Amino acid sequence: MSNFKQAPHKLLVIPGPIEVHDSVLLANATPGTSHVSPAFVPVFGDCIRMLRKVLYAEKTGQPFLIAGSGTMGWDAAGANLIEAGDNAIVVDHGYFGAAFADCLETYGAKVTKITAPVGGIVSDEDLVAALKSQKVKLITITHVDTSTGVLAPAAHYSKLIKEHSPDTLIALDAVCSVASEEIRFDDWGLDIVISATQKGLGVPPGLSVVMASARALETLQNRKTPVPSYYINWNRWLPIMRAYEEGSAKYFATPPVQLIYALQVALKAITEESPSLEERFALHKKVSNHVKDELAKLGCGFVPLSRDIAANGMSAVKYPEGVSAAILPKLAALDVVVAGGLHKDIASTYFRVGHMGVTVTDASRGDIQKVLDAVKTVVTETKSA
Amino acid sequence: MSNFKQAPHKLLVIPGPIEVHDSVLLANATPGTSHVSPAFVPVFGDCIRMLRKVLYAEKTGQPFLIAGSGTMGWDAAGANLIEAGDNAIVVDHGYFGAAFADCLETYGAKVTKITAPVGGIVSDEDLVAALKSQKVKLITITHVDTSTGVLAPAAHYSKLIKEHSPDTLIALDAVCSVASEEIRFDDWGLDIVISATQKGLGVPPGLSVVMASARALETLQNRKTPVPSYYINWNRWLPIMRAYEEGSAKYFATPPVQLIYALQVALKAITEESPSLEERFALHKKVSNHVKDELAKLGCGFVPLSRDIAANGMSAVKYPEGVSAAILPKLAALDVVVAGGLHKDIASTYFRVGHMGVTVTDASRGDIQKVLDAVKTVVTETKSA
Repeated sequence: MSNFKQAPHKLLVIPGPIEVHDSVLLANATPGTSHVSPAFVPVFGDCIRMLRKVLYAEKTGQPFLIAGSGTMGWDAAGANLIEAGDNAIVVDHGYFGAAFADCLETYGAKVTKITAPVGGIVSDEDLVAALKSQKVKLITITHVDTSTGVLAPAAHYSKLIKEHSPDTLIALDAVCSVASEEIRFDDWGLDIVISATQKGLGVPPGLSVVMASARALETLQNRKTPVPSYYINWNRWLPIMRAYEEGSAKYFATPPVQLIYALQVALKAITEESPSLEERFALHKKVSNHVKDELAKLGCGFVPLSRDIAANGMSAVKYPEGVSAAILPKLAALDVVVAGGLHKDIASTYFRVGHMGVTVTDASRGDIQKVLDAVKTVVTETKSA
Repeated sequence: MSNFKQAPHKLLVIPGPIEVHDSVLLANATPGTSHVSPAFVPVFGDCIRMLRKVLYAEKTGQPFLIAGSGTMGWDAAGANLIEAGDNAIVVDHGYFGAAFADCLETYGAKVTKITAPVGGIVSDEDLVAALKSQKVKLITITHVDTSTGVLAPAAHYSKLIKEHSPDTLIALDAVCSVASEEIRFDDWGLDIVISATQKGLGVPPGLSVVMASARALETLQNRKTPVPSYYINWNRWLPIMRAYEEGSAKYFATPPVQLIYALQVALKAITEESPSLEERFALHKKVSNHVKDELAKLGCGFVPLSRDIAANGMSAVKYPEGVSAAILPKLAALDVVVAGGLHKDIASTYFRVGHMGVTVTDASRGDIQKVLDAVKTVVTETKSA
């Protein structure tokens, strides 16, 4: 079945889910397999090991791979690390930052939300002031807020946080940045990285991907109150993850076997094949700049206020004058699926294009040119109509 | 790609995950598709509608299809329906009943666990006495406890509960019974049915399947305290499920798109193709009796104390004298994967065989004969060694 070819379909270039390689889709069609079988155990173990590589988390990173979504990763961070009354800061660069605040409040956190202007980032001054005004248990940063296409300067923020509030746990929402933006878990001193499979990793959705530091797990162990959730309690999952990594099966809840087979194929390509991880990030940046430059030539603007805070795995693109969301169905008719605006204040003024994974790393597909051609066609038609 | 054939593999006859039909696996390899696309919306809607049919829940049933596992369905029931101090009863027929009690206690329930002798069921007297001794918010029944192969008399228990404690919400853990045992949600007056995709539904794991009654949703609305979880808060999911059913997309967290395509194919086969739903249940019973009769001829016993409380989708089989778990790798070497014992008190004395889904409904596969032949071979070899 190695000659499996997926069905013809519209090109999926939203900021996730993204296009999936044939080999990954075929792995997602692995025949029924026991979650405790000798065949499956090393597959799960491989995924755990390779995830550490992708995040440069080989010193202290403990992966958690659990059936669920990216959002469930927030929930896990909140439920496992927050106790009622804990102070938390949410660096808010759009829809996803704000929602993460709701999540932490569910677990009794007193959340200070530092909200950047739309398309901008939180200033160093505002961040430091918030850190200094209180003892902060946890700070969350959305690495790429998919609603604005803003890329947070995560390394820089982490350094500031270490300097001004070294005990604060740092959680990076990397749902839309893993494998498309560089994340150095150990070097930056991150405590939690939250992601999912359907974006830069290039796997179908349905698997929550979390990396936790030794310090995060110590915080969990030192809780005064029990973890207020059952399914996402890391105390239940830690022995499972360790067992599979060590080569034996252990049961708490059934893992999504086929998705883990699919993730293994995707992670092998990312960690062992060309481009290398470093080249992958450089390539995403190069392609992103090309996409943005070409769209600018068509009169498009961008939601991020400057290029240096714009994501490399997606673009939040302002419609040129005279053009509206009416172009989205026209793009779909040309077999190019982009996403509409999501940030409530500006939703009707922009659209979103994903450029991640195989769309970026496999130039022979011609995905990028197809997107640019389609946008050019519909924008030109609209303007001349 | 309609001629897709899955890779050759060992026959998977554990009590879930089970064998998956080629057409379902192919749907699980659907190309990357937007979770809010016009292509996907009706697929999700179809699944919601067809699930009601499978559970005879067309009067008041509200399905929730959320990325996760069967265990996450327990968590959803606990988090959404229990408030600290609520009384709950767990009808405990094995490992899964006992674990459900842990789950409810996480949310502050005062749990009375009525534990049946291993292989037996809770008596009417014990059930009624527990119901009468307190005001009970929620009672949970594991329909088929996979650890013992015991089938709870769910209709009978429901009737008793309605008679003696009509306000008590009834939750049926149907992870290992949906689509292999009859469940009449409306007629029996169930409030919650919890399942997953990888057992009788014949889909890969990774999707939590829950049905909630109007009464359960009222209980949720009348809570005095907020739902103490973020991701599995039904208040967040209800508008999503309703939107997809009505034909529009709405976002809270990304659904597992490919698994929902796969579920659609599986549910269509169950609700629209031969055998009919009624015939499907009868067929599972017939095949179950055949398997049990044939295994008995080899000297096997059974964990359930009598045939009328034995599941029809699986068998918990006691090793014949002189035979032990050492036969499991020998069966695997014959390409037949069964499961070992799970109940801690008797784990080494029995094994478990699943007979669900295509293994039962498609006789042309020859799965059942293959299992029986393999067991006969290894038991005979072992006894004569």
